[in-house]
Amino acid sequence: MLMGPGPSSVYPEVYSALSRSTLGYMDSYFIRIMDQIKALLQELMKTRNELTFPVSGTGMAGMETCLVNLLEPGDSILILINGVFGTRMREIAARLGAEAEVLEFEWGRPVEPEAVEKKLKEKPFKLVAMVHAETSTGVRNPAAEIGRLLQGLDSLYLVDAVTSLGGIEVDVDGWGVDALYSGSQKCLSCPPGLAPVTFSEKALKAIAARKSKTPSFYLDVDLIGKYWGGQKRSYHHTAPINMLYGLYQALVLVTEEGMDKVFARHQRVHERLVEGLEQLGLALLVDKPFRLPMLNAVKIPQGVEDAEVRSALRSKHKIEIGAGLGPLAGKIWRIGLLGHTAREENVERLLAALRDVL
Amino acid sequence: MLMGPGPSSVYPEVYSALSRSTLGYMDSYFIRIMDQIKALLQELMKTRNELTFPVSGTGMAGMETCLVNLLEPGDSILILINGVFGTRMREIAARLGAEAEVLEFEWGRPVEPEAVEKKLKEKPFKLVAMVHAETSTGVRNPAAEIGRLLQGLDSLYLVDAVTSLGGIEVDVDGWGVDALYSGSQKCLSCPPGLAPVTFSEKALKAIAARKSKTPSFYLDVDLIGKYWGGQKRSYHHTAPINMLYGLYQALVLVTEEGMDKVFARHQRVHERLVEGLEQLGLALLVDKPFRLPMLNAVKIPQGVEDAEVRSALRSKHKIEIGAGLGPLAGKIWRIGLLGHTAREENVERLLAALRDVL
Repeated sequence: MLMGPGPSSVYPEVYSALSRSTLGYMDSYFIRIMDQIKALLQELMKTRNELTFPVSGTGMAGMETCLVNLLEPGDSILILINGVFGTRMREIAARLGAEAEVLEFEWGRPVEPEAVEKKLKEKPFKLVAMVHAETSTGVRNPAAEIGRLLQGLDSLYLVDAVTSLGGIEVDVDGWGVDALYSGSQKCLSCPPGLAPVTFSEKALKAIAARKSKTPSFYLDVDLIGKYWGGQKRSYHHTAPINMLYGLYQALVLVTEEGMDKVFARHQRVHERLVEGLEQLGLALLVDKPFRLPMLNAVKIPQGVEDAEVRSALRSKHKIEIGAGLGPLAGKIWRIGLLGHTAREENVERLLAALRDVL
Repeated sequence: MLMGPGPSSVYPEVYSALSRSTLGYMDSYFIRIMDQIKALLQELMKTRNELTFPVSGTGMAGMETCLVNLLEPGDSILILINGVFGTRMREIAARLGAEAEVLEFEWGRPVEPEAVEKKLKEKPFKLVAMVHAETSTGVRNPAAEIGRLLQGLDSLYLVDAVTSLGGIEVDVDGWGVDALYSGSQKCLSCPPGLAPVTFSEKALKAIAARKSKTPSFYLDVDLIGKYWGGQKRSYHHTAPINMLYGLYQALVLVTEEGMDKVFARHQRVHERLVEGLEQLGLALLVDKPFRLPMLNAVKIPQGVEDAEVRSALRSKHKIEIGAGLGPLAGKIWRIGLLGHTAREENVERLLAALRDVL
């Protein structure tokens, strides 16, 4: 059972979908599936953005797609960092020759809107980027608040929703987000391999105004958009057909259960997990108001051997939980309650296993 | 039935593999599968290259991985073009700021080594790139001969083996190839979504000597290599686990049948197809010595409506064949005999359907 930071346990119906017959990438039936995927993603992301589709790569490809299309050499970007994935955005921005400034916050604490507001008054930025759900720490960052700060400014707003999409509310249009990426293997409970993205009209205008072509042909959203939309579809690359069947099935399942019910289920099992962990004497890294329901960072108690516990859970109980990353390596475990994994029975099974192992 | 230029019909065993339980990307059992995939790819590509793995994207991502790692702004590349995919290499090289020169040959005719030899005497190139099996025309380019011309030169040799790998011989070490990419959805008969690549020691030295980091983090082979090899695996991105199960199964099937037998089967069914087409009064675009067995470009006879025939094959006979691209649109059909599709019974079914439709 996958209770780490992702991939999550996959829906049985998604496994079946993956093994349906491969169709041609221009097959009219397959194009109908593409259109459905787009519509379901728009619903889940709460956006009317026409350019909404899954990138043919994993979540990291989603991050790169947003940055490689929005940034040119010399462009200014402000990155709000409080974990591994914010740091990765800085790395990619630097490779693209952008002028990256960062505001860093303690790992395990949320981004502070006051500090961001102050920075935004100092100078203008072409792009402001933040991770909504920091998978490395379990912190929920204030995506709506940062969006409000950017209202009326020229800056574009980029949000990483890899771990949040499908587990907590993501409101692209409501928050004024201009570009957002996610991954198939978190709360959508599809295997890894696809990265849903969306771009606003404002983002598309910025892309159209580029002085140079984006260095990536594979991730050029202008070209990909002509395969995923428009009257006449034109070939750009051979889409990962079967993975798209899987994503389509996963989106149908989330929509059928109902987004609000899915979010409530994540919150409910998270609360039960926290209660059970506290009974075992375990504490969470993140303060209550900023906790993500789907990613629980648990402090490893003094004297307990990190790797031994994870290994015993894996071998004896067939449960995988995640290790800490970077400065939190050896200090936390990361317990994922992502999508299909977020079920009461899974939480009880994990709590029993932890009770046995500790 | 998929008898276009790809994707090909997928092996039933590969469909089953796709729907096996998703494992964590650092799971020890999954890492064993990764090691097996690497070994099987080395065997199929005839190489000892340590850096041999499938890129987490489609064939186009394979092309981009090779170019984005090997080229820096100002680098010189010679691209030998006789179809769509050579043209795409030029497009990507230009986006990367490389100085691209091209030698163009008629679409439907092979690259001519004499012209290449002359060009190589004029000036040195960092990289010389060619498509082995031009999917847009059905031409087999002289990969071994171009490799011989490059012996003793400093140039790196890049080969596109998207359509050839698993259908005809590919001999990376024997031909002196420094970088090669392929795709999962052609002669390997796996769904699209993975791009096997390999890099020689000489290529790795050139990458290590780069003045700037590659603009792509997602496709940075230095970082990906640390996840796919070495003593301690380090996280770079979440691998597309289930797609890799599928590729592993496909590689096992090819190896079990025996590479030479697989190549002979492709050749045999190709010859039967050509014979049957000639009986129907249809001629091939490419002269006999340069024909690819897995990709047959058939001239559309005068007075026959391209789209009508393909549409009737699709609706009445459930067979998909490919249209022509670029200057060959409306002039040829592309019949794929790729991997699992390359069977006598499929050829007979197609010939009967063509007889009915024409």
